[in-house]
Amino acid sequence: MRVMTDRAAGPEILRMIELIGKLPGLGPRSARRAALHLLKRKDQLLVPLADALAEAADKIETCRTCGNFDTMQPCAVCQAPGRDDGLICVVEDVPDLWALERAGAFRGRYHVLGGVLSAIDGIGPDELNLAALETRVSEGDVREVILALNATVDGQTTAHYVAERLEPSGVTVTRLAHGVPVGGELDHLDDGTLSTALRSRRGV
Amino acid sequence: MRVMTDRAAGPEILRMIELIGKLPGLGPRSARRAALHLLKRKDQLLVPLADALAEAADKIETCRTCGNFDTMQPCAVCQAPGRDDGLICVVEDVPDLWALERAGAFRGRYHVLGGVLSAIDGIGPDELNLAALETRVSEGDVREVILALNATVDGQTTAHYVAERLEPSGVTVTRLAHGVPVGGELDHLDDGTLSTALRSRRGV
Repeated sequence: MRVMTDRAAGPEILRMIELIGKLPGLGPRSARRAALHLLKRKDQLLVPLADALAEAADKIETCRTCGNFDTMQPCAVCQAPGRDDGLICVVEDVPDLWALERAGAFRGRYHVLGGVLSAIDGIGPDELNLAALETRVSEGDVREVILALNATVDGQTTAHYVAERLEPSGVTVTRLAHGVPVGGELDHLDDGTLSTALRSRRGV
Repeated sequence: MRVMTDRAAGPEILRMIELIGKLPGLGPRSARRAALHLLKRKDQLLVPLADALAEAADKIETCRTCGNFDTMQPCAVCQAPGRDDGLICVVEDVPDLWALERAGAFRGRYHVLGGVLSAIDGIGPDELNLAALETRVSEGDVREVILALNATVDGQTTAHYVAERLEPSGVTVTRLAHGVPVGGELDHLDDGTLSTALRSRRGV
């Protein structure tokens, strides 16, 4: 892929393609296609997108309490009245928070780690938003910390690590249940999920 | 995919995700991932991308002569001295022009159709940049029109149609050679390419 050798495309187009190509899931070829798509739809898409990105860059910041993205400081979820301050749900990243809010099943507060421990990616405890979690737990009236981390190796390693870090505070630490997804067919599930679902079986 | 029901994401974030999701190859899920990627890299990526898009929207326009995108009117390729005005290479879209310029094998002018005829997509002759091509051919000193359209069914249908439209002008109309791609292995080529390459064989 020799995206930077487009002699016929001017520097403005090349710069646009280069930056679009830095989005996850877009290579140089699809970045070129996306840039062309935008240039062909200047009024309907290019201008609105440029405006939306500028507005996002201008207004959206990381919540200093929980790590969520919002235009308010602290974020709307942290400010919302009627949520249980005694419950903190720890998630890996902001989309996980959004997913839980979509499900509408949790009415406590959140804490976004901003990643998980990963030896391969060189992410250690200091790279995660952990000190702030300890402070929230030690200073606030927190009864329970729910670790809603992904059921991946890194996610579970991180869950264990966070649980250990919180042990001195005496707070109750729980994690999401593992088992058969709602709507899931046994035939399509991996052995690990099936074994876990069997071990964690409950009375009907 | 219920991207618009992210209750915890503010309207600015939702707008950004919605617009990113309109890029080709990005669904609602990858648009969310891209938006998050941008928000996490505000100074390195979000702000530069917003600026680059705004600059592109502001400066880049469609060349009124050939249909290329550029900051000049007419575009750099149309203005370039030392190119052969008697040769017009007709391409489907701007990336094809870029691809030919990267190859560096053509020193004439271009004409971008902006698509190909497609019954399925409802694209007829009026949707293509054809009248301007006829004008260029009839008014200018054009010796040859090279149809560099994709070797797809729609591309070849369009090539035939353009050749017919140009017939009254008496200009020579040619098309790119079909055959074995350079570096291609016969074993991996389709029957159509092999038959064409055989029929169009040349002396060594």
